[in-house]
Amino acid sequence: MFGRIDHIGVAVEDLDESIRLYRESFAMAEQHRETVEAFNVEAVLLEVGEGHVELLQPLSPEGAVGRFLEQHGPGIHHVAYQTDDIDGALRAVREAGLRLIDEEPRRGIRNSRVAFLHPKSTGGVLTELVEPAH
Amino acid sequence: MFGRIDHIGVAVEDLDESIRLYRESFAMAEQHRETVEAFNVEAVLLEVGEGHVELLQPLSPEGAVGRFLEQHGPGIHHVAYQTDDIDGALRAVREAGLRLIDEEPRRGIRNSRVAFLHPKSTGGVLTELVEPAH
Repeated sequence: MFGRIDHIGVAVEDLDESIRLYRESFAMAEQHRETVEAFNVEAVLLEVGEGHVELLQPLSPEGAVGRFLEQHGPGIHHVAYQTDDIDGALRAVREAGLRLIDEEPRRGIRNSRVAFLHPKSTGGVLTELVEPAH
Repeated sequence: MFGRIDHIGVAVEDLDESIRLYRESFAMAEQHRETVEAFNVEAVLLEVGEGHVELLQPLSPEGAVGRFLEQHGPGIHHVAYQTDDIDGALRAVREAGLRLIDEEPRRGIRNSRVAFLHPKSTGGVLTELVEPAH
């Protein structure tokens, strides 16, 4: 169903400082930067093998990442699994009884199609499905 | 420096229920199960591509995962990056100024060598380096 861990999403307060931390400490290169209005974040993808660390800085205190930062401080926000067929994957998890945040896929970073599952039904883990753009 | 995201570590209250959730919802197969006394956990590795989800159930309320569960409830506990040279990687992150939880690698699951970095110096992300057994 999933090809790999696509990325971990990390909530940060200062994007440039975080990019520097990952570059200087872990030699992870910045691969992509994008303002994702639908998620109210400025996002940066760092490269690690075939996967990524996705740094997320909220554009304003509203929105999921802004609220996460206020409640928890910076840290791991979600995990994302890569799939070639997000429609099929969403159907499968719905049939398995999971609660969805996104009933239909929506556009994520780099023209991917993404959908979030509700952490109440996934053992407290905010889980994202990602179908990369082809 | 890192080959991939090796795994995410997930703190769980009921290992068997969590294994069932990941199998039935995500078709992730159990690959390995081990009591890791040094970390005071019963751990299960689920397969996702070349990486893993590592489910962690504390053996007792003491220890890092037990305290995490008490404070946060179940959820993502840490991320681990794979390296072929953990001694070199530890030296590099120390030179970059990061604070280490483990000054020297210790034995982790499946005879890997592992070391944790302090989340205070990694933007709130509990980060593990893993050198798999050869």
